[in-house]
Formats: sequence, C-alpha cells, structure tokens
Amino acid sequence: MPNYTLYYFNGRGRAEICRMLMSAASVPYTDKRFEFNEWDKYRNEMPSFCVPVLDIDGQNKMPETMAIARYLAREHGFYGKNNMDMFRIDYICDCFYEIMHDYMRYFHAKNGRFWGNDSDMKSSDLNPYMQTRYMETCRRILPFMERSLEMRNSGSQFFMGDQMTLCDMMCYCCLENPMMENQSMFNSYPKLMALWKRVAAHPKITGYLKKRCSTNW
Amino acid sequence: MPNYTLYYFNGRGRAEICRMLMSAASVPYTDKRFEFNEWDKYRNEMPSFCVPVLDIDGQNKMPETMAIARYLAREHGFYGKNNMDMFRIDYICDCFYEIMHDYMRYFHAKNGRFWGNDSDMKSSDLNPYMQTRYMETCRRILPFMERSLEMRNSGSQFFMGDQMTLCDMMCYCCLENPMMENQSMFNSYPKLMALWKRVAAHPKITGYLKKRCSTNW
Repeated sequence: MPNYTLYYFNGRGRAEICRMLMSAASVPYTDKRFEFNEWDKYRNEMPSFCVPVLDIDGQNKMPETMAIARYLAREHGFYGKNNMDMFRIDYICDCFYEIMHDYMRYFHAKNGRFWGNDSDMKSSDLNPYMQTRYMETCRRILPFMERSLEMRNSGSQFFMGDQMTLCDMMCYCCLENPMMENQSMFNSYPKLMALWKRVAAHPKITGYLKKRCSTNW
Repeated sequence: MPNYTLYYFNGRGRAEICRMLMSAASVPYTDKRFEFNEWDKYRNEMPSFCVPVLDIDGQNKMPETMAIARYLAREHGFYGKNNMDMFRIDYICDCFYEIMHDYMRYFHAKNGRFWGNDSDMKSSDLNPYMQTRYMETCRRILPFMERSLEMRNSGSQFFMGDQMTLCDMMCYCCLENPMMENQSMFNSYPKLMALWKRVAAHPKITGYLKKRCSTNW
C-alpha cells in the first residue's frame, strides 16, 4: 500500500471526507494538520496553493478534495458496481459538495478570513451575501436529497440500498457543521437526518468518530 | 443506447463539456436549449432546480455537470485505464471546474443575473468581488495546469499522453470564454494554449465545433 500523507488545516472542513474514507477502509495515513497562521509555510508546497492535498509516497502531491475522495472510494469499494451506480453516487456527492463549498466560503467570510485583497469589499459586506447563498443552496438541494434517498428501500438504509458508499459519507461530512449551527433547517428532512445517524453508527465509522481530533469546524 | 435529452440554457456554459463528450462519442441526443426568460417554465422540472440535467429515456433526470460528464467519459473511454489515471484526470478536471465555477458566477453577476433576493447586496456591489475571485482562481490554477501538462510527453500531446481524455475537453470548454475576454492572461501558459488548439483540431472535435450553435458564452 502506498505511503499516504493528507495535508489540511486543523479542522474537518473539506478534508474530512478523505479522512473518513481512509478510516472506513482501514488505510494507514499521516494526518498532517496545521493552523491558519501556519498557512504561509505550507501554501507554496501545495500544487494549486490549496488544501486538502494527498501526498503519495513523498513523490506525488495530488490536490482537489473530490478527486482524492473518488480515488479512495474506487480503490476501497465505496463507489458502487457499475457506471449507472457511479453516476448516481457522483450526482449525490456533487449536490452535497455544493452545500459544503458554499458553507466553507460563508464560514471563512464570517470568521474574517476574507479572500480577495484586490477588491474594495470588506468581509462584513460580503458575509450576508455568502450566508444567503449558502442557505439558498441548502433549500435547493436538500429536498432533492431527501427524495433521492427515498428512491432505494424507501430511504430506510443508504443512498444506494443496503451498502454504505461514498455519497452517504459525503452526506455526513457536508451536513455536520450546518446541522450544528441550525438544527431546525433540517427538520423537514427526516430520512436524511436518520441516514446521518445511521452513518455515524456504521461499524466502519463509529470508531473513527470517537477517536478523531475534536475541532469546531 | 438510451434516449438522451440534455437540458440547459442557450449557451455553452456548464453544459458544453457534456455536449462535447456526446459528440466526441457519436452519441445521439436532444439538445434542449432555452432562454433565461423561459427559466421559470423549466426550473421546477429540474431535480435540484439547476441545469445542466441529463434526461435518460424520459424516466430519470440526472443533475450535476460533472456527474453527467464523468458518466459519459466512463461509458465512452475518455477516463483513462486505471485508478491512478482516473485520479489524475479527476484533479485536472476539478481544477478547470474551479475556474469555470468562479467564471460563471462572475459572468452572471456582471450581466445582472444576480442571485440572492434576501440579501441587501446589489449586483453592482458584488461584481468586483466576483471578478477578483475568478481572476485569482485562474492565477492559482493555471501555472499548475501548465506543469501538469508537461509531466507527460513534455506537454506536446494531451494531459494523459497520446490519448485525448475528459480533462483535455474540460481544458477546452472551461477556458473558452476566459480566453475570449482576456487573451493576454494566458500568454504565460504556452503549452496549455497549444493543447487548447490541439483539442479543437482533434478529429472527434473539429466537426462538432464547426456545426455547434454559435453563442457568446
């Protein structure tokens, strides 16, 4: 097995899906975390000046959250059995990714980690827009996710039926902070909420959740 | 072969990668296009109130640009031969997608198609932020794409070597408008620019580019 190092900030954020997959697949890896004030030290080592990045055998630094997640999911059997399964897993993942993407931009703006030196805009100006955008993405995506879940086994198991796949773990990781911040927004999606708990209780996940680093994002 | 209908606005935008793949694979499909002022008519028929959407046999409406593109690429041999190939194709695609995503948000803001009724922000306030964000994404991603291209055959063929794959088509589709708007931004990436022309001249692409609908985005 290759020697993996995952680089990311000391938070769950975009990297958590990759960490969860590696734990679910019992893949050993170095979980390299750093603080925001250390970013300047790492930034230039990252291929596209972004994290997460997966380093393989100290030779290849591979960027992009979902490229890393898909690679791990294919390698370890969390990606379905045929092309139509993969299509379905992909669109469910991409829907949750939209929520995570808009949440992360809102989260950083809210915390004053404002991107965009060249613009005259201040973080405080941008924050309401980012929040509205993220909330609207939730309102647009979540009803469809609830319906998608119901398409297999009435939504009583996982998105693809009786086996947990990449998209169930995406559901867990992408909704974790949004649910902590605003539980009531999710009351209209009881099947999704039950799935969220089902993933947490899965034998391949429950041990990971107990022992992982505790961070507030 | 299934009966495909692709739904999108009357523009290239996010749908063009799907159209290009179907043409490159000689897959017949109905290219259903509508104008912005017709969106209210179509919006509620789309699973997550977004396009592009691929309808399969009039029974399944599948959303998400890259889920559609990956499905088509797997089905028709534009996704490499093994998991590490797919990883590489995925991260290159996701890098170009970042440019497209930020470009499309900037493009819509610039043209007054402002998303976000609940916010006090005006399109004119948001536009400089969106432009800066998009330009910064280009500056962050493009040098890495130039280097990634050079990793195989010195960058003289395609990202994966001698075969054109999904990520070469993504390069073409995602950079088309950015290059039209600001050619000089791309002068520092000669191998990428040569690849862009190589994709356009590929026997599976050149016919499509000649006969496709002509739109300015």
